[in-house]
Amino acid sequence: MSVVAVDGFAAAGGHVGIKGAGQPDCAVVACTTPAPASAAAVFTTNLAAAAPVTVARAHLAATGGRARAVLVTSGNANAATGAGGVAGAEALCAAVGAACASSPTEVLLAQTGLIGVPFDFAGVAPAVAALCATAGTTDAHGAAAARAILTTDAVPKTHLGVHEGFRVGAMAKGAAMLAPNLATMLAVLTTDAACGPGLLGELLRDAVAPTFNRVHVDGSTSTNDTVCLLASGLAGPVVPERLGEALTEACASLARQMVDDAEGATRTATVTVSGATSDHQAHIAARAVAGSLLVKCSLHGADPYWGRVVAELGAAGVDFALDRVTVRYGNTVVCSGGEPAPHDAAAVAAHLARRQVELDCDLGLGGGRASVLCCDLGPGYLDENRSTS
Amino acid sequence: MSVVAVDGFAAAGGHVGIKGAGQPDCAVVACTTPAPASAAAVFTTNLAAAAPVTVARAHLAATGGRARAVLVTSGNANAATGAGGVAGAEALCAAVGAACASSPTEVLLAQTGLIGVPFDFAGVAPAVAALCATAGTTDAHGAAAARAILTTDAVPKTHLGVHEGFRVGAMAKGAAMLAPNLATMLAVLTTDAACGPGLLGELLRDAVAPTFNRVHVDGSTSTNDTVCLLASGLAGPVVPERLGEALTEACASLARQMVDDAEGATRTATVTVSGATSDHQAHIAARAVAGSLLVKCSLHGADPYWGRVVAELGAAGVDFALDRVTVRYGNTVVCSGGEPAPHDAAAVAAHLARRQVELDCDLGLGGGRASVLCCDLGPGYLDENRSTS
Repeated sequence: MSVVAVDGFAAAGGHVGIKGAGQPDCAVVACTTPAPASAAAVFTTNLAAAAPVTVARAHLAATGGRARAVLVTSGNANAATGAGGVAGAEALCAAVGAACASSPTEVLLAQTGLIGVPFDFAGVAPAVAALCATAGTTDAHGAAAARAILTTDAVPKTHLGVHEGFRVGAMAKGAAMLAPNLATMLAVLTTDAACGPGLLGELLRDAVAPTFNRVHVDGSTSTNDTVCLLASGLAGPVVPERLGEALTEACASLARQMVDDAEGATRTATVTVSGATSDHQAHIAARAVAGSLLVKCSLHGADPYWGRVVAELGAAGVDFALDRVTVRYGNTVVCSGGEPAPHDAAAVAAHLARRQVELDCDLGLGGGRASVLCCDLGPGYLDENRSTS
Repeated sequence: MSVVAVDGFAAAGGHVGIKGAGQPDCAVVACTTPAPASAAAVFTTNLAAAAPVTVARAHLAATGGRARAVLVTSGNANAATGAGGVAGAEALCAAVGAACASSPTEVLLAQTGLIGVPFDFAGVAPAVAALCATAGTTDAHGAAAARAILTTDAVPKTHLGVHEGFRVGAMAKGAAMLAPNLATMLAVLTTDAACGPGLLGELLRDAVAPTFNRVHVDGSTSTNDTVCLLASGLAGPVVPERLGEALTEACASLARQMVDDAEGATRTATVTVSGATSDHQAHIAARAVAGSLLVKCSLHGADPYWGRVVAELGAAGVDFALDRVTVRYGNTVVCSGGEPAPHDAAAVAAHLARRQVELDCDLGLGGGRASVLCCDLGPGYLDENRSTS
């Protein structure tokens, strides 16, 4: 399954000495074709971006979108670590490059863990090189890689899309509520479709926008968020639209798995705003509802308090007229024209008791529409995040 | 104490039938001078503003800034209640107007409680009128009024400023974390200074900006937030700067009391951002840190994880260069130049264990500076907000 179920890729996962006690803390995904893979990536917009983000960006620019391998480590974010952190990240890439007989710039890097904790990454470089030598293409290799990138995720997150003439494989670590770290979201995707780096980047950005960028767990944008995509080309050219759809499917699957596995979360809600004056305004409004602590608390308690939803919509900063607003839980309208609507309370209660719920808000003003995936706020989040020690 | 310790004002607080079992749910503050008071108010920016906000705004506009009384009720926000809600709000103002021998438009109204729950406010109008008849100027009257406006606040919030030649009295109910309600923040201020409504409004807005508007509990802007100020004029004219300072002092006192009493909160932090390229950017950055769930969780656990602080600054959308950033807990620098700074961990731990903590971030870019007051996120918030039933 996952990244190695795609022609032209091998992977390994194991312990290199970042976490304690032999815990898996490093994965490598390598392209096994003679030429390096086409590569594209989407990085965090955080201006406090971590060293691995700086390095991976520079490498992609230097190669014009070619990569031999992606290295992912967990346990230390290598963020706010200054010049030493950048040197450590480069040392890791050099070790992988040497092990894979490629240039260090053909290695991409993603790291996750605590921020502001210096670490001797050069010291673990030999172990990283040794791990690269064990890379293989079996399910066990793919599973080991998917497990090694986790922090406090409960379960690995993988995806395999088998499409006509090509495949897309993927693995990820979860979004937010992952104590004691920030909401780092890392994903590696592979495909055997042949596609130049320019188009690959375009398709990846289009796939990330409606999926990973429409998730709201705690609203924090990590210093390390990274989504990497490598294309081996072994399956030959693919209609770009088909590849784009497959990538979006993979990202959507991983995004859903991340929200479902957010720590402390017991319920996932799809918040949809329609009837906005634009899709952009709908997205802003949906994000305001999905990001509200009060709404998240209501979701945790399965409490049908739509007043909080209306209040968040009114404060979202978008075009809004209370008397045009309709709110639904599942198929049940609870607010119509901005006022309480007579409804089947038992139907609402039954819907809210589910693991997956739907919250739909129609602003009644236009054709704009957007959905955001969020989770509830439960005591588990507090337990995980009150202390890093 | 509070609103009645100012010449020209009487108050009453008691039960009018909104909450159950005789609980206090209504307060009135009335001006006892022959002419009505000068009046000004600041209202929520929420576009889903409640009926009392709509009505109070209209009354202030109709009178040009004159008011005989302010009525405050708790237990039902009268928000998202349509035309019936507005009629109910007007009925309450008419009852107070009749009891005080004034026009209904000379009555301002603020309400707090559940959103989207229709209530027969006209039905409680007789009880409201009866309550008005009991208004008086003793401490007991002021205390009863301050208690009647609370929802789940643990303690009443009042302030009395005795200045040279004039006084400012005030009462408020708390900001956010007030289950099962939204973050409604209501305050009534009185002064015996003589001041026309135009200047009064200007001074009130200037007093609210650096105080109530610099509080972050859960980021929700209520449908009902209202700050009312009445001036009896009995102390004669006052230098505007002195009155402005006194109003700011009163608002700052109430804001601090609100954050300290936010439900579930165990710690209050003053987040200060300096070195920003403007005061506005400093405010945005301070708000991002103060509003971060991860930072709030760290505060609850007294955990000195400054990595989260740096990450929120980098994602705040302001000018930012990681290698210029300094972070302090109290007087101890923990991050300098965007990297870990050697420091006295025991001093940081001692500071973070306090009830009131200081978190200072210097962006190192300019002279912009702002502070935001916030609280931690503890299990009490979840307990209070998971269900309204």
